[in-house]
Amino acid sequence: MNFDYSDKSQKLIDRLQAFMDEHIYPVEQEYIDAVHNNADRWTTPPMIEALKQKAKDAGLWNLFLPEEYLPYGAGLSNLEYAPLCELMGRVMWSSEVFNCSAPDTGNMEVLARYGSEEDKKKWLVPLLEGKIRSAFAMTEPAVASSDATNIETSIVRDGDEYVINGLKWYTSGAMNSNCKIMVVMGKTDPSAARHAQQSQILVPLDTKGVTVIRPMAAMGHYDEPVGHAEVSFDNVRVPAANLLVGEGEGFAIAQGRLGPGRIHHCMRLIGCAQRALDLACERVDSRVAFGQPLSKQQSIRERIAQMHCDIEQARLLTLKAADNMDRYGNKVSRNIIAAIKIVAPRMACNVIDQAIQMHGAAGTSQDFILSATYAYARTIRLADGPDEVHMMQLGRNLIKDKNA
Amino acid sequence: MNFDYSDKSQKLIDRLQAFMDEHIYPVEQEYIDAVHNNADRWTTPPMIEALKQKAKDAGLWNLFLPEEYLPYGAGLSNLEYAPLCELMGRVMWSSEVFNCSAPDTGNMEVLARYGSEEDKKKWLVPLLEGKIRSAFAMTEPAVASSDATNIETSIVRDGDEYVINGLKWYTSGAMNSNCKIMVVMGKTDPSAARHAQQSQILVPLDTKGVTVIRPMAAMGHYDEPVGHAEVSFDNVRVPAANLLVGEGEGFAIAQGRLGPGRIHHCMRLIGCAQRALDLACERVDSRVAFGQPLSKQQSIRERIAQMHCDIEQARLLTLKAADNMDRYGNKVSRNIIAAIKIVAPRMACNVIDQAIQMHGAAGTSQDFILSATYAYARTIRLADGPDEVHMMQLGRNLIKDKNA
Amino acid sequence: MNFDYSDKSQKLIDRLQAFMDEHIYPVEQEYIDAVHNNADRWTTPPMIEALKQKAKDAGLWNLFLPEEYLPYGAGLSNLEYAPLCELMGRVMWSSEVFNCSAPDTGNMEVLARYGSEEDKKKWLVPLLEGKIRSAFAMTEPAVASSDATNIETSIVRDGDEYVINGLKWYTSGAMNSNCKIMVVMGKTDPSAARHAQQSQILVPLDTKGVTVIRPMAAMGHYDEPVGHAEVSFDNVRVPAANLLVGEGEGFAIAQGRLGPGRIHHCMRLIGCAQRALDLACERVDSRVAFGQPLSKQQSIRERIAQMHCDIEQARLLTLKAADNMDRYGNKVSRNIIAAIKIVAPRMACNVIDQAIQMHGAAGTSQDFILSATYAYARTIRLADGPDEVHMMQLGRNLIKDKNA
Amino acid sequence: MNFDYSDKSQKLIDRLQAFMDEHIYPVEQEYIDAVHNNADRWTTPPMIEALKQKAKDAGLWNLFLPEEYLPYGAGLSNLEYAPLCELMGRVMWSSEVFNCSAPDTGNMEVLARYGSEEDKKKWLVPLLEGKIRSAFAMTEPAVASSDATNIETSIVRDGDEYVINGLKWYTSGAMNSNCKIMVVMGKTDPSAARHAQQSQILVPLDTKGVTVIRPMAAMGHYDEPVGHAEVSFDNVRVPAANLLVGEGEGFAIAQGRLGPGRIHHCMRLIGCAQRALDLACERVDSRVAFGQPLSKQQSIRERIAQMHCDIEQARLLTLKAADNMDRYGNKVSRNIIAAIKIVAPRMACNVIDQAIQMHGAAGTSQDFILSATYAYARTIRLADGPDEVHMMQLGRNLIKDKNA
Repeated sequence: MNFDYSDKSQKLIDRLQAFMDEHIYPVEQEYIDAVHNNADRWTTPPMIEALKQKAKDAGLWNLFLPEEYLPYGAGLSNLEYAPLCELMGRVMWSSEVFNCSAPDTGNMEVLARYGSEEDKKKWLVPLLEGKIRSAFAMTEPAVASSDATNIETSIVRDGDEYVINGLKWYTSGAMNSNCKIMVVMGKTDPSAARHAQQSQILVPLDTKGVTVIRPMAAMGHYDEPVGHAEVSFDNVRVPAANLLVGEGEGFAIAQGRLGPGRIHHCMRLIGCAQRALDLACERVDSRVAFGQPLSKQQSIRERIAQMHCDIEQARLLTLKAADNMDRYGNKVSRNIIAAIKIVAPRMACNVIDQAIQMHGAAGTSQDFILSATYAYARTIRLADGPDEVHMMQLGRNLIKDKNA
Repeated sequence: MNFDYSDKSQKLIDRLQAFMDEHIYPVEQEYIDAVHNNADRWTTPPMIEALKQKAKDAGLWNLFLPEEYLPYGAGLSNLEYAPLCELMGRVMWSSEVFNCSAPDTGNMEVLARYGSEEDKKKWLVPLLEGKIRSAFAMTEPAVASSDATNIETSIVRDGDEYVINGLKWYTSGAMNSNCKIMVVMGKTDPSAARHAQQSQILVPLDTKGVTVIRPMAAMGHYDEPVGHAEVSFDNVRVPAANLLVGEGEGFAIAQGRLGPGRIHHCMRLIGCAQRALDLACERVDSRVAFGQPLSKQQSIRERIAQMHCDIEQARLLTLKAADNMDRYGNKVSRNIIAAIKIVAPRMACNVIDQAIQMHGAAGTSQDFILSATYAYARTIRLADGPDEVHMMQLGRNLIKDKNA
Repeated sequence: MNFDYSDKSQKLIDRLQAFMDEHIYPVEQEYIDAVHNNADRWTTPPMIEALKQKAKDAGLWNLFLPEEYLPYGAGLSNLEYAPLCELMGRVMWSSEVFNCSAPDTGNMEVLARYGSEEDKKKWLVPLLEGKIRSAFAMTEPAVASSDATNIETSIVRDGDEYVINGLKWYTSGAMNSNCKIMVVMGKTDPSAARHAQQSQILVPLDTKGVTVIRPMAAMGHYDEPVGHAEVSFDNVRVPAANLLVGEGEGFAIAQGRLGPGRIHHCMRLIGCAQRALDLACERVDSRVAFGQPLSKQQSIRERIAQMHCDIEQARLLTLKAADNMDRYGNKVSRNIIAAIKIVAPRMACNVIDQAIQMHGAAGTSQDFILSATYAYARTIRLADGPDEVHMMQLGRNLIKDKNA
Repeated sequence: MNFDYSDKSQKLIDRLQAFMDEHIYPVEQEYIDAVHNNADRWTTPPMIEALKQKAKDAGLWNLFLPEEYLPYGAGLSNLEYAPLCELMGRVMWSSEVFNCSAPDTGNMEVLARYGSEEDKKKWLVPLLEGKIRSAFAMTEPAVASSDATNIETSIVRDGDEYVINGLKWYTSGAMNSNCKIMVVMGKTDPSAARHAQQSQILVPLDTKGVTVIRPMAAMGHYDEPVGHAEVSFDNVRVPAANLLVGEGEGFAIAQGRLGPGRIHHCMRLIGCAQRALDLACERVDSRVAFGQPLSKQQSIRERIAQMHCDIEQARLLTLKAADNMDRYGNKVSRNIIAAIKIVAPRMACNVIDQAIQMHGAAGTSQDFILSATYAYARTIRLADGPDEVHMMQLGRNLIKDKNA
């Protein structure tokens, strides 16, 4: 047991930190202003392209893809990637600079693992090169999607094609003008066994019958220029080869992508929370009320201490989960993946909320990142399985194991 | 001691409820859509005017103004007004229909109490008639406004005029195209005793030197068409008669308005929370996950029960505060006013947050009012004195009283 | 709606407060020492008898019994009794001085309502006169008694007698040397409908086959000299007339007693919590750490304020519940009775726990009442239905009502 | 970074677990009964001696003493000892079996580090051999001992002796009939600098003027046969050589002992909490209410999951703290030591409290260890520095570091 980062990790951390210090933090406000003043809400501000090139040049590119997908990606383990992902999380939009944004990361992993050579050439390579973006269409407005077996979008074989009908929302990424491809989850066989009804299929955004209806808000934020779309599928036809792996494999593919996806969200959320604490530490030292800086108040000190304790504990749990995933695989690690998914979003919500309170009205404003990161943390309590579903599964497993 | 509403109250509750059922709930979504699709974000959708006329006709107008201000207002006590204000709070924008919106209510009360006959004619009457709107400029970005003595805007006498310089933000109401008048808090004498430095002065929006810079977000929401503005005052000159009461009276006037203002916010928040619970009760009964409606889950029932308990307790505390204010005055009631201001916003945040979780992604969307009411509740933890200031004062008073 | 106590209530409050100030608080420590040094843990210290006589003389006797049981009791409504019960709760053992102790109160109410003339003469009159004490045997160690239908003790008719077999624990009162009679809950017909299986029966302590096995601890406390007993029933025979009302009525009788019983506990717990706050206010003002009294620390003030808010809210909810019970009956008031049973014990636990923390090690000691009242509050989260059962029922009812 | 125990650790864990399974768990109830039925509350039940010999034979003895004190102790690092200490914590009294009980561990460490050869021979060796027990007298009833500089016991030089006067309480260990020696903290120079006033001195229990007045309760528990004593010192005279290190070194010695002492408590508390969770998992699976085992309820599963998450996070933080102490020393590690001291006791209180609730009345009884371990966890929120002092220091440090 050892709580230091490996030399390899530490060097990457140092390089990424240096890049953030040199290229990201100085333009943080510039980027926010660019988004606010964007002529087209859904087009990524041009400054990102220059930063992406710099990140590629610095060898800080596609850091999320593990060794098994070499030559794609940086070949880092989950444990090695974790502190990097946390650093990026401190400035939410910076993930894209390093081509480590959700949902592209999960889509690239799915394509690398299950895509045909054709798929890889057409979609994976441009994604890995940062030339296009992608979306993942899973959640539906009409059913409780917390139970993934409720999903109703139909995927029906018709000759050499599949025909897709359904309505999705919170399809993250699909608003962006550069989004070209979607992975869509639906049912190929509603009469099959509960977890064998679903399939996943590739649907180009420009396919006939696909309509991006509107952007969905997440706690008041629209997350421009990426966004979360409501998308309808009306007799959308794609080649049969677009179906990933095979009919009935959709649930298994989802499980495969959600393990890493969940832990990536948790790593980012640790970063969000740490940044909120850093901002709070600065704020309370610079504001004076009732005759002394806020930082001299016992209640402020207690809260700062508690925020730190909560972040550090969640960070350790996330790192242990990453380590377990690396060594024992995602299936064996399902309890600890559930645990971090339960812990990290609520921890981040609480820590950021405290930081907002310490900032006063400013904390709720567009001038600080706190409100947007709160919204992100809050939605992750629902995305990729709501807290309650993870708690149900973890609790059931623990009780079962103890009484085995 | 008696926990039933008086007959007079109950009749008004019934009439207001009937009005809400007939005129407000049926167009709730229509109004939201009107705001979303508004050509000018800051112009109130026309449908409001028709509703206002209906409310006037129904005698449900200016319900907030207590008896002492007759012939203005409905002459209701705080206790009589409380359940009505709660009912309006269930549909946040409906307050305006009954001319009971903040910050107009506070401004009308100040004008009725302290305004000259000239002021009343020029500003109070149009406000009471719902023809114009108003703003209250207090919070400043540069200082910890939680300590009101920090406020830096200067109000300097120059012959027959006062000259105002400063920068305000979160000036609620000032974005609206119909906002004509502001009450501005500033310092006339920075060398006076701590609570005698401040004055309040009337500043028409169209005065030279007044610039509405931008709308401020509150947790991602801009609260169109009312909004919260950043406003600069550059050598703004107004007649000396615009100063309310006299130099050095600003803090006392603020105290006078904040008592009712705080309790009105709390009443509305009870309404927000009750509505969130109502929506949650409907949602959990209509959604099925893992083989049964969510409403059958023990954890859902426990949370629904807890939400109800928290709302009902805060409601009773608010009603008792209203009763105390009616009978003993705002000064004697300062502890219980502090208590509700501490309790209600956090209660509402917690209850609404639970309701959001029960709604899944929909709860965070623009299709339900939950996210916007959460943002309102969250900001009230900071507005009119942050939680911590009220706790400081209440705690200090309680300890002092016990050890007297 | 009116939040002042009635004149009748206020006069009783004043009289009881005066009695407490004159006769109870001055001997509070003396009583505690008497219990600690008691030769027989389970014999009530003699000083209580003198105090009981004083209370009788002062007309402060059997205050709990409502009007319907006149000439027994003081004829107070629940709402009138509530503040008195709270005052007694501030010194837990003082309830006995006014003959208002659980479980005697519930037993007296059951006897007054359902007892035969014979029962009343033999048991009710001595109880009302404070000459004997009683116990209520419900909870069983072998089953989850949170679901009262689980109870297994058998009550079998055999000629003119009933034969009782079973094992009870946490039979409050049964350790006391003056305890003469038990009300026992058991099953007369395990094959009947779910809520018609149970019956209640009177069992004198000295009946053959009754064995008081041992005292049960409640969070480390044994609550001498009253105690909570484990009691076995081995072929215990009592006359058939001892069965209350009739076979199958046990559940209904329990429901009848538990409404008032629960609210009495809640009233006492408000008193416990208020006393803890009072002690905390005194303590923090008298202790100096790091250069200033604890009372000057912002965190202490915030906690004191929060404790007050929590107590006051629970108090109002309890009073409203009492009022509803008086006016609409226990059945119609079941939701609000559930609500206070959910709220008050946890509120008291939290408030007392905060007070303990402010007292340092002393707070955990036998020198302050805090640890014992914490234990009481903690056990009431389980007694008379655990939190979870009340939440289940309240949540279910609310959802049902909303979707009706 | 690596989250597996080292081979050395894992082998010790396996051996200790085997010993616990073979020798401790089977007699757990027997020991509790022995204590309950003890003729002398303060004499350790004889069965412990046999177990101690078995532990010695198994090489599981003095595991707490780090390498620097070899040949004394097992030479384990804090990180190696942590999981062992946790295992012992699952059965609180088992620590003594392995000679790893507080306050003996801290006293042995102080003696090994600062004791003269004479002291070591007379007190350290018998302690290491488990032949005597010891106590640490620090807390005083008259002052807020949370601020250690408040301590008032005087230690005055008089020729070749020191004369000690003062009143201590919560002197853990001093009730035990085998307790022979105390380390006493007091002031040798009240006029010196704030942290140079204190000294520590060895005082045999049988010194004239030492009076063990009474046992102190900790949340209703007296922790027989070890106990926490109130002890008075009336002109107690000991040889000047009994003063440890030198006058004015008392605070520094205390700081030295409290680092390891705090982390040992935290390790044990992790064990307490894990045991509570294990018991809860068993209980909920074996109890049926409302037609199904409690373990099928969603709310139970959610709580079990949360308990696990909280324990695992605190465990990781404790292990990281141990690792940091091993590698960087206690002083550099002060922030993380503060963090675990803040986190672990409240975590344990919460987890155990949930387990109690799941056990129903049984959870509060003497038949389960839950109530006693809750009391232990609750008192550690106060002992060795209350939560608030650690939060004050950690918060202050974090703010300072961020703004450096």
